Amino acid sequence: MAEITIEVSVNNLWILTSACIVFFMQAGFCLLETGSVRPKNINNSLIKNLIDCVIGAIVYYLIGYGLAFGDVNGEFAGHELFAAENFEGTTIFNLWMFQFAFASTSATIVSGAVAERITLIAYIIYSVLFNAFVYPIISSWVWGGGWLYKMDPPFIDFAGSGVVHITGGMSSLIGIILLGRRLGRFEPETVEFDDPLSRKRVRATISPTEFRPSSQIYAVTGVFILWLGWLFFNGGSTLAFTGGSTITAGKAMMNTTLGGASGGLIVFFLKHPLYDLIMKRKHDGPFKPKYDIAALNNGILVGLVAVTAGCANIEQWAAIIIGAFGGFAYIFGNMLGDSLRLDDPCDTIYIHLCGGIVGIILPSFLDQTTGVCYGADGKQIGIQLLGMIAIMAWSAIGTLIIFGGCKCFGILRMPVYAEIYGLDLVDNGVYGMNVDLAAPKIEFVDEDNNENEPSEDQMPEPKIKRQRTVQDHLKAFEKDE
Amino acid sequence: MAEITIEVSVNNLWILTSACIVFFMQAGFCLLETGSVRPKNINNSLIKNLIDCVIGAIVYYLIGYGLAFGDVNGEFAGHELFAAENFEGTTIFNLWMFQFAFASTSATIVSGAVAERITLIAYIIYSVLFNAFVYPIISSWVWGGGWLYKMDPPFIDFAGSGVVHITGGMSSLIGIILLGRRLGRFEPETVEFDDPLSRKRVRATISPTEFRPSSQIYAVTGVFILWLGWLFFNGGSTLAFTGGSTITAGKAMMNTTLGGASGGLIVFFLKHPLYDLIMKRKHDGPFKPKYDIAALNNGILVGLVAVTAGCANIEQWAAIIIGAFGGFAYIFGNMLGDSLRLDDPCDTIYIHLCGGIVGIILPSFLDQTTGVCYGADGKQIGIQLLGMIAIMAWSAIGTLIIFGGCKCFGILRMPVYAEIYGLDLVDNGVYGMNVDLAAPKIEFVDEDNNENEPSEDQMPEPKIKRQRTVQDHLKAFEKDE
Amino acid sequence: MAEITIEVSVNNLWILTSACIVFFMQAGFCLLETGSVRPKNINNSLIKNLIDCVIGAIVYYLIGYGLAFGDVNGEFAGHELFAAENFEGTTIFNLWMFQFAFASTSATIVSGAVAERITLIAYIIYSVLFNAFVYPIISSWVWGGGWLYKMDPPFIDFAGSGVVHITGGMSSLIGIILLGRRLGRFEPETVEFDDPLSRKRVRATISPTEFRPSSQIYAVTGVFILWLGWLFFNGGSTLAFTGGSTITAGKAMMNTTLGGASGGLIVFFLKHPLYDLIMKRKHDGPFKPKYDIAALNNGILVGLVAVTAGCANIEQWAAIIIGAFGGFAYIFGNMLGDSLRLDDPCDTIYIHLCGGIVGIILPSFLDQTTGVCYGADGKQIGIQLLGMIAIMAWSAIGTLIIFGGCKCFGILRMPVYAEIYGLDLVDNGVYGMNVDLAAPKIEFVDEDNNENEPSEDQMPEPKIKRQRTVQDHLKAFEKDE
Repeated sequence: MAEITIEVSVNNLWILTSACIVFFMQAGFCLLETGSVRPKNINNSLIKNLIDCVIGAIVYYLIGYGLAFGDVNGEFAGHELFAAENFEGTTIFNLWMFQFAFASTSATIVSGAVAERITLIAYIIYSVLFNAFVYPIISSWVWGGGWLYKMDPPFIDFAGSGVVHITGGMSSLIGIILLGRRLGRFEPETVEFDDPLSRKRVRATISPTEFRPSSQIYAVTGVFILWLGWLFFNGGSTLAFTGGSTITAGKAMMNTTLGGASGGLIVFFLKHPLYDLIMKRKHDGPFKPKYDIAALNNGILVGLVAVTAGCANIEQWAAIIIGAFGGFAYIFGNMLGDSLRLDDPCDTIYIHLCGGIVGIILPSFLDQTTGVCYGADGKQIGIQLLGMIAIMAWSAIGTLIIFGGCKCFGILRMPVYAEIYGLDLVDNGVYGMNVDLAAPKIEFVDEDNNENEPSEDQMPEPKIKRQRTVQDHLKAFEKDE
Repeated sequence: MAEITIEVSVNNLWILTSACIVFFMQAGFCLLETGSVRPKNINNSLIKNLIDCVIGAIVYYLIGYGLAFGDVNGEFAGHELFAAENFEGTTIFNLWMFQFAFASTSATIVSGAVAERITLIAYIIYSVLFNAFVYPIISSWVWGGGWLYKMDPPFIDFAGSGVVHITGGMSSLIGIILLGRRLGRFEPETVEFDDPLSRKRVRATISPTEFRPSSQIYAVTGVFILWLGWLFFNGGSTLAFTGGSTITAGKAMMNTTLGGASGGLIVFFLKHPLYDLIMKRKHDGPFKPKYDIAALNNGILVGLVAVTAGCANIEQWAAIIIGAFGGFAYIFGNMLGDSLRLDDPCDTIYIHLCGGIVGIILPSFLDQTTGVCYGADGKQIGIQLLGMIAIMAWSAIGTLIIFGGCKCFGILRMPVYAEIYGLDLVDNGVYGMNVDLAAPKIEFVDEDNNENEPSEDQMPEPKIKRQRTVQDHLKAFEKDE
Repeated sequence: MAEITIEVSVNNLWILTSACIVFFMQAGFCLLETGSVRPKNINNSLIKNLIDCVIGAIVYYLIGYGLAFGDVNGEFAGHELFAAENFEGTTIFNLWMFQFAFASTSATIVSGAVAERITLIAYIIYSVLFNAFVYPIISSWVWGGGWLYKMDPPFIDFAGSGVVHITGGMSSLIGIILLGRRLGRFEPETVEFDDPLSRKRVRATISPTEFRPSSQIYAVTGVFILWLGWLFFNGGSTLAFTGGSTITAGKAMMNTTLGGASGGLIVFFLKHPLYDLIMKRKHDGPFKPKYDIAALNNGILVGLVAVTAGCANIEQWAAIIIGAFGGFAYIFGNMLGDSLRLDDPCDTIYIHLCGGIVGIILPSFLDQTTGVCYGADGKQIGIQLLGMIAIMAWSAIGTLIIFGGCKCFGILRMPVYAEIYGLDLVDNGVYGMNVDLAAPKIEFVDEDNNENEPSEDQMPEPKIKRQRTVQDHLKAFEKDE
C-alpha cells in the first residue's frame, strides 16, 4: 500500500466529495428533461437517466476506466486497470468515482436530445457503448495522458467543455438527425396506423400546441442541482486541494459562477429581441412573451458549459466574457437549428455543442498562460481547433455507428401509436403521473369508409361515436367495449 | 480540550460532511414515499418524514446517543452522554450529527410501510420510542462496542445493512401486519360508515385502480437523493479519512455504486419475466408492461441496502454479486408478500428486510478477511446469523409493543371515512396538492332504505342525487346544502 | 502567492464545500416559494429566484464583496477588492464563494414576500441594489471588521440571524407594505379593468378560496434542502476546520439541528391551539385541521433562523430554548400580521424578522461567554439591541428607496388583469405547468350596460355568453372569436 500522507488524504477527500456531488448532477439532468417533455412520456425520460447510472457504472468498471486511464502515455487509449484490476491498496478508487461521475454526465446529455421518441432498447445499447468506448477514448486523449495532452502546449480542457460537452452535444446532434422529428412538433401532423387496442385502422393528429413542458418547477430545480454539481465538476477537476490547488479550486468555482450568470443574463435579455429582429417571428399566443424562463435556464447552462474548459486559468472578467459568448452561441445556434427544423426537446445541441465550442476556442485567447491576449504566439489556437475536431469526429462516428445500427435493425424509434398514446403507456402499461394528460383524439378510419353503414337519417339512435380522446379510448378498452 | 491535530481535523471534516449529506436522505425517503402514494394522502407522508427529523433530533439528543455510545463496553446498552453531557470541548458533536442522521434514516424507513392509513399520533409515538430505544440499543451492540462487536471475529456490519435496514425493515413488517391492508388495495371493497359531513349513513367503494402513484418524478428524484446520501452513508462510515481510510472510503463508495447498479439491473430486467413465469400473473391494462420504473427504483435501492454491510472489505465483483442477490431477494420476497396479501405501499420490507438479510449473510463468504471464499473457517457465518436474529428480534419486539399498544387504545389506524376522503382532508382540512384527485363515489345508505320516500313516478322533478363524487360531496357541504 | 500550509488547505476545503451547499439553498427557497403560490404564478417565482443568482453573482463580484470586506477596519464599509481586484494568488476566491452564497440567500428571502404581484423589472432593480449595497454594508459592519465588530464585547451574530435574516425579513416587510395585498386574499374582491384580449371593459372576482398552495411536496422538499444548507451555513461560518474549529463546526451544526427541531415542534403543536384561544378563529372547511404542514415547515425554519446567531457558543438545551422562542415569536408575529391584514405569501416576515430578532436578543443571556445566564454584566444586551436596530434601519431605508422608487414610477406592481390571468401568462405567454388552473371568471361589463341590445324575449337564439372562465376566454381569443 502506498504511504498515505496527510496531503494525499486531503486531496482525496476533495476528489471524493466532488465525485459524489457531480454524480448528483444525474438528478439535475433528469429533472431538467422530465420538466421539459410532455407528461405522457416522463417515465421514458426517468428510466433513461437511471439507466445511464446503473449501466454506466458496470460498464465503466469493466471497460471504460481502463481505456481512459490505463497507462495511456501518449497513445490512443489505455490498456490496463480494467475491472478494477490493481485498484486494491491504492487511491484509484477515489479517482474512479470521480471519472465515473463524469462519464455518466456526458452520457446523460444525449438523453434529453432523443427524448419522447427513442426506444429504451436503443438507449440501453447506446448507454453501454458510449460509457465503454465513445467517452473513455476521448477522455484518455485529454485527461489520461493521451496524444492531445502531449501536445506542446497541451490541449486546454480543464474540466470538459470538449471532453464532456462537445462529446455529449455532438452525439446528441447525430441522434436527433437519425431519429427525426417528433410527430407534430412544427406543424400539425396526421398519421394513420393499425391501432393495437381496437385492432382497427385509425387516424390521429398531433399539433404543436401539445408540446408544453410538464412543469418548469422541475426544470428550474434541475438547473439548480446542475449548478451545484458544476461547481464541484470544475472545482474538483484540480484533483487536489493542497498547495496551489487550494486557490485554483476556488478560482475555478468563482469563474464557473460568473460564467453561468453571464450566459443566463445574455440569453434571458437578448434571445427574444434577437429572434424578433432576425427571424421575424410571430407570436400567436394571447400575450407576447416578455420573459422566457427556458431562456434563463438554458442561458445559465450554456454559460456553465462554455466556462468549463478555461475556468482554472482565466481572470474573472474573462469568465464573464466566455459566458456571454456562450450565450450568443446558444442563441444563434438555436436560430440555425430552428431554420433546419431540428427537433431538440431540451436544446441540448445549442447548450452543449455550441457552448462547448466556445469553451474550447476562447481559452486560446484568454488563458492566462498561453492565451493570445496575454502575449502568447497563438499556437494554442491551432491545438484547440485540432482537439475540437478530433473530439467531434470520434463522437460523431461512434454514435453514428450506434444509432445508425439501431436504425438499420428498426429498433431506434418507437412506433407511431406510442407517440400518440404516450411512450409510458406503451412501454410501462401505465402513465407516470396521476394527472390528466393533454392528448390527441383518435378517429376510426374504417368506419368512415364503411359503405354498408346506414345513413344518418336511417338511424334513430345516435351512432357509435367515431372520434374520441385517448382517455376515452383507453376506458373503452378497459371495459372491453 | 483534547488536542486537535490536523489528522483529527481531516477525519472530523469527513464525518461532518458525510453526516449532513446522510441527513439529506430524509428528503429522498420523503420524495420516494410521496411519489408512491395517492395524491389525497401526501401531507400525511410529508409530515411523517418531517416528524422523524424534529422528534428524532430531540429524542436522540436526550436519550438515544447515550444508550448507543455511552461507554457500552460489551454491555447491552450505554449509560452516559445523555443530553449532550460532557460533549463540550470534544469532537463528539461531529459523531452525534453522524449517528443522528443514521437513526433518523432507520426510523423513516417505516414511514413508507405504514403510509396512507396510520394516524399521525401513532406515528409520533413510534418516532419517539424508536429513536429513543429501538434503534439506539441495536446500534450499541454493533457500533457502540456492545456484545456483537466483542464477538471474535466481530459481527460484520460496516454501514448498517443490519443495524439500519433490517431494523427498519422488520419494524415495517410488524407495522404492516398490525395495520392491515389499505381499503380496496387488492380487490374492490365497499364500506359503510357514519359520514361526518352529511351526518348520514353512507357507503363507498375503493377499487385497486385508485392506487396509482402520485408521480414517478418524485420517486426517481428520491432515488437519486438516496443514492447520493448512500455514498456518504457507506463512505462516511470509515469515521476517518487519514491513512488507510483514504482508500477505504473510496472503495466503499465504488462498491456501493456497483451494488446499487447491479441490483437495479437484476430487478429491472428479471422481475417481470420471473413474475410471469412463477406467479402466472395476468396484465389487465391496455398494454403489457415491458419496462417497470418502480422495479428499477427499488432494484437500485435493494442493491444499495445489500452492499452496505460488506462494502468496505469486499472486491468489486463481489459487490456486483451482492447487489444481484439483493435483487433476487427483492423479487422473491415480493412474490411471497403478494401471495400473503401484505400491503406494503413502498415495497419497504422487500427492499430493507430482504436486502438487509442478503447484506448480512453474504459477507460471511465474500469478506476479504474473514469470508469463506478467502479461506476463512466459516465461524463468521454463525456470528452473522446470530446478530441478524438478535436485530430482528429486538426490532420486532420493540415495534410490536409500540404499534400493538396503539392498536389496543384504538389510535393506530385512521377511521374508514379518512381513507375515502383522503387523510389530508381529515387531518389537515385541505388537500396538499392543488390538483383534481381520483376519488371514490359516496352513496347515501339511509335514503336507499327510506320507505317514506315517494316512488319515482310520483316525482315530476328529478330526485335528490343519491350518488356523488367526493369532490361534489365536499362542495355540497361548503355551500351548506 | 501566500504559502499554503496544510492547515490553510483544510480550512479552505471546509469553506468551499460549505459555500457550495449554502448556494444550493437557492433551490430550497425556490421550491418553498413555488410550492406556496398559485399554479398560475409559478414562473414568476422561479425567475425571481434564478435572477437572484445570476444578477447577484455579477453585482457581488463588481461591488458587493468590496464594500463588505475591502479593508473595512471599523469603518462604515470597505473600499477595495472590487471586481476581484487582487484576488489572484490568494484564497479570497474561496471566501468570495462563501460570502456570495450568503448574499444571495439574504436577497432571495424577499422573493417569497413579494410573490404573485411584483413586476419582474422591479425585482431585477431590487436584486441589483440589494446585492450591491443593502446587504454588503450590513455584513461589513458585523463580519467585515466594521463598527459592530469593534464593539466591546463584539456584536454577536455568528452566522447571520441579524445580517442575513433580519435584513431579509425587514426588506420583506417594506416590500409587503408598499405592494399591498394580493387581490381577493382576505375577502372576495371584484375588479373592473380594460381587458387586453377582448379590448372590452370586463369584471372579475377573486376570492380567498383560490389561494391554495400549488403543492406541499415542493414546500417540504424546499425545507429539507434549506435544512441541509443551514447546517453548512452555520457550521461553515467557523471559516476554518483546524484546531478548535473542528469542535465548533460540529457544535454549531448540532445546535442548529436542535433549534430547528424545537421551533418545528412548538409551531406544529401550539399554533392552532393558540390561534383558537386568542384569535377565536372559525374554520369553515369541512374538517377542522388537526395538523398543519405549513406550520411544521415554518416552525422548523423559524427555529433555524433564531439559533443562527448564537449557535457556536451556546449549550444544547439553550439551542432548544432559542428555537422554542423563535416558534412563539412566529406564532404571535403571525397573529399580529393577520390582524393588520399583511399579505405575506410565504410567512417571510414571521420566519425571518421575528426569528431573527429572537436570534439576536437571546444570546445576550445564553451565550456561554458573555451571556447574563453565565454571570456576565449585561452589556451584551445593549450591544445586541443597538446592532439589531441599526440593521433594521439600514435595510428598511434601503428597500424603501428601491421599492418606493419603483412605486413612484408605477413599475412596482403587475396590472390587475395579470393577477386575474396569472402573472405567467402575461409575462411569459404560457403557463409554467401543464395542468388545469383554478382561475376566476370573466364578465363583460359593456354588454351588461348595452342599452341597444335586444331584450331576451326578442332573441330566439341563445345570447352571446356573458361570463366565462379564464380558460374559455383564452380559447376564444386563440380562435380569433
